[in-house]
Amino acid sequence: MDNFVFHNPVKLLFGKGQIAALGREISSGARVLLAYGGGSIKANGVHGQVVAALRAAGHPFVEFGGIEPNPRYETLMRAVALARAEKLDFVLAVGGGSVADGCKFIAAAIPFAGEPWDILARHAKVEAAAGLGVVLTLPATGSEMNAYAVISREATREKLAFGSPLVTPKFSVLDPETTFSLPARQLGNGIVDAFVHVLEQYLTVTGASPLNDRLAEAVMTTLVEVAPRAMAVPPDYAARADLMWCATMALNGLIGQGVPQDWATHYIGHELTALTGIDHARTLAAVWPGVVAVRRQAKRAKLLQFAARVWGLSEADEETRIDQAIARTRAFFDSVGVPTGLAAYGVAADIPEIIAGRLEARGALPLGEDGGVDAAMVRRILDAA
Amino acid sequence: MDNFVFHNPVKLLFGKGQIAALGREISSGARVLLAYGGGSIKANGVHGQVVAALRAAGHPFVEFGGIEPNPRYETLMRAVALARAEKLDFVLAVGGGSVADGCKFIAAAIPFAGEPWDILARHAKVEAAAGLGVVLTLPATGSEMNAYAVISREATREKLAFGSPLVTPKFSVLDPETTFSLPARQLGNGIVDAFVHVLEQYLTVTGASPLNDRLAEAVMTTLVEVAPRAMAVPPDYAARADLMWCATMALNGLIGQGVPQDWATHYIGHELTALTGIDHARTLAAVWPGVVAVRRQAKRAKLLQFAARVWGLSEADEETRIDQAIARTRAFFDSVGVPTGLAAYGVAADIPEIIAGRLEARGALPLGEDGGVDAAMVRRILDAA
Repeated sequence: MDNFVFHNPVKLLFGKGQIAALGREISSGARVLLAYGGGSIKANGVHGQVVAALRAAGHPFVEFGGIEPNPRYETLMRAVALARAEKLDFVLAVGGGSVADGCKFIAAAIPFAGEPWDILARHAKVEAAAGLGVVLTLPATGSEMNAYAVISREATREKLAFGSPLVTPKFSVLDPETTFSLPARQLGNGIVDAFVHVLEQYLTVTGASPLNDRLAEAVMTTLVEVAPRAMAVPPDYAARADLMWCATMALNGLIGQGVPQDWATHYIGHELTALTGIDHARTLAAVWPGVVAVRRQAKRAKLLQFAARVWGLSEADEETRIDQAIARTRAFFDSVGVPTGLAAYGVAADIPEIIAGRLEARGALPLGEDGGVDAAMVRRILDAA
Repeated sequence: MDNFVFHNPVKLLFGKGQIAALGREISSGARVLLAYGGGSIKANGVHGQVVAALRAAGHPFVEFGGIEPNPRYETLMRAVALARAEKLDFVLAVGGGSVADGCKFIAAAIPFAGEPWDILARHAKVEAAAGLGVVLTLPATGSEMNAYAVISREATREKLAFGSPLVTPKFSVLDPETTFSLPARQLGNGIVDAFVHVLEQYLTVTGASPLNDRLAEAVMTTLVEVAPRAMAVPPDYAARADLMWCATMALNGLIGQGVPQDWATHYIGHELTALTGIDHARTLAAVWPGVVAVRRQAKRAKLLQFAARVWGLSEADEETRIDQAIARTRAFFDSVGVPTGLAAYGVAADIPEIIAGRLEARGALPLGEDGGVDAAMVRRILDAA
C-alpha cells in the first residue's frame, strides 16, 4: 500500500426526516444561499422541508434556482454575483451531484479575487470559501462526501474538475425519501455512475491493498444486489437507503487510499459530455467497454479477480472469464436502462479524433493507473467503444 | 437501515516516514504532553522520530511515560497534574490503544472542573478537552480513529468506557514500520481484537444494511487472509500495512452505522480484565464462544451468512455450517496464539456470578443487540464459555 493522507470531515445526517435537523449544522449568524436545480424539489416537497428547517433555526436565506445538469460556469457566476450582492456566506446545495458540484464552485468563487474560471482552467489555488452544506436528492456522484467538483463552460464546451479541502461540505443530509420521485433514467444513471466510480479506483492492479479491494468489491456487489429493488416503483425505502449509502461510499475517498487509480473513463467521458451533452453516467457506460478492451492486458489480473469476486466466475478458462465479467457488467448497466458502448449513442465519426486532441492540448495525457494511455490510445479506446 | 449521524474528522497520515510530518498537524503555540507506555518506543526508535518531529516544528513538549496496558486512572491523573502544572494544551499519544485511550482521558481531564472519574462513573459531560494526536504503534483497538476510550481504576477494580467528540484525535500517524518490533503476543492480540470489533457490529441480524454487512465481511476476510504474513518475522511491510488498515477500519464507526450492535463480549470481557488482569483481546477470545453458544438462535441467520461469506461454508446442513463457522473462528484465534474459551485461562469458579453481579449493579444490563442478555444470561454465557 502506498503512503496516503486521508481526511474526510463531512458530517453525514442519514435517514428519513433528517432535513429537519440541518438548521443547527449551520453557524448562527450565517447568511445562506439556498441553491438548487430545475425545481423538482418544489414538486416533491423537499424545498418546503428545507425552507422550514432554515426558518426554524432563524437563518436568513436567498434562493437561487436553475443549476443545470453538468452545471455551467455561466449560470454559477450569476449565483456568485447574487451571493456577493447579498453578502451570503453559506451555500446550501439541494439536489444531486450537479447542484453539489456547482455549489462547491460557487462557495470557492464568492471570495475569489481574480477570474474564478482560473480555479478550473489554471488550477488557481482556493484560499478561502464560503461554508457549504448539501441536501442530497440523487444518489450518484459522491460529491456530498468529497472535495471535488466538475464544472462545464458553455462558451468553450469545456468540462473541467477542481478540488479543495475548503469546499468539502460541512455536512450532508442523505434522506432516501428525497429520491422517491426520481425518474428511472436518473436512478439508472446514478447506479452506473457509482459503479464506475468504484471501477476507476479498483480495476487497475492486484495486491496493492487487499482490504481496499474487498471494500470496493463490497460496494459493487451490493449495487448489483440492490439495483432491481432500488429501481422499483412504488419506491422501497430500504433499497433506496442502500443505494444512497453505496453511492456515497463509492467516492468518499476511502476505497481509493494508497492504491493506483485509473479515471481514464471519466476523463474521456467528460469530453464526450462537453461535446455532445450526453448524460455523465451514460458517457461512462459508452466509454468503459473501450477502456477495458484496449487495456485488457494491463488490467488482466484484476479483471480475473473482478470476475471471480463480483460476478462469481471461476469456472471456464481465463479469457472466457474476463469476457464474461465484461459482458455481465454491460448487462448490469443495460438492466438499469443505461446502454453501453459508443454506438448506442450515435455520436459523430470524428469524435475520437477531437477528444484525443482536446485531452492532449489540455495536458491531461497520459491517463490511466500506469500513465499508459496516450492520445493514440484514447482514439483506440473510443474506436473500440 | 436505521437513521444515523456519522462524523469522523480524524486526519490519517498513513505509511512509512509519516511521523516526520506530525509537527505541522499541531497548532503553532501548542504546548505538548508527549505521553507513552512502558518505553518500548525508546528501544525501537519511534521515540526519537517523534522528538525530532516536535523539535523540527518548534513545539515545546514535556514527556510522560509509564501508561500501562488497561490504562489506570491513578497513573493518568499524574499526567493530568503534570499537564496542568506545565500548562500543556496538546496531548500526543505514542503507543497502542491503551496509550491512545489513556490520552483521551488525560485530554478531557486537564480542563475538567470536578472529579474526572465522574466522566467514567457518572457520565459527566466533557465540555472541553486539550487537543489530541496519536502515533499508533500497535494495530488493534481502532482508538486512533474514534471518540471512545476505556479506563481502569486500580482501587476499585473497575474498567469503564467514555466517549466524546472532543477527544477524537485531530490526527493519527499510522506507520506500519512502528510495528516491526512488536512481540507475537501483541500482534496476535491485535488481530483478535480487530476481528471481534467487527463481530460486535456484524453478528446480530441480517438485512439491516447489505453494504455494511459486506464491508464488515471485507475486514474479517482480509484479517484472516493477511494474519499469517502479518505475524511473520522478519516483518513484511505490506502485510503490517494491511493489518493496520484493517484494525483502524474495524472500529472507526463506519461499518456500524445504521445497524444494531451487540458488544456483549466486550462488556463481559472488560469485567474479566478488571478482575483478573487478563489481556483485553484474550478476554474477548475467552468470552465470545459463550456468547455465540448461548445466543445461537437469536443470531442464527447472521451466523449462516457469516459461515458462507467469511468462511466459504455452504455445503452441509445449517447446524453443521454454524458449528463449522464457530470452530473456524476459534481456530483462527488459536492460529495467532490467542486461546479461546474461558477454560484456557483458568479463572476462578465464582467469576460468572461476580461478573453478572457487577454488570447488574452498574446498570449495564441488559446487553446485546436486542437487549436480550440479562444477568442470568451473562452467567450462562460465562458457564458456556
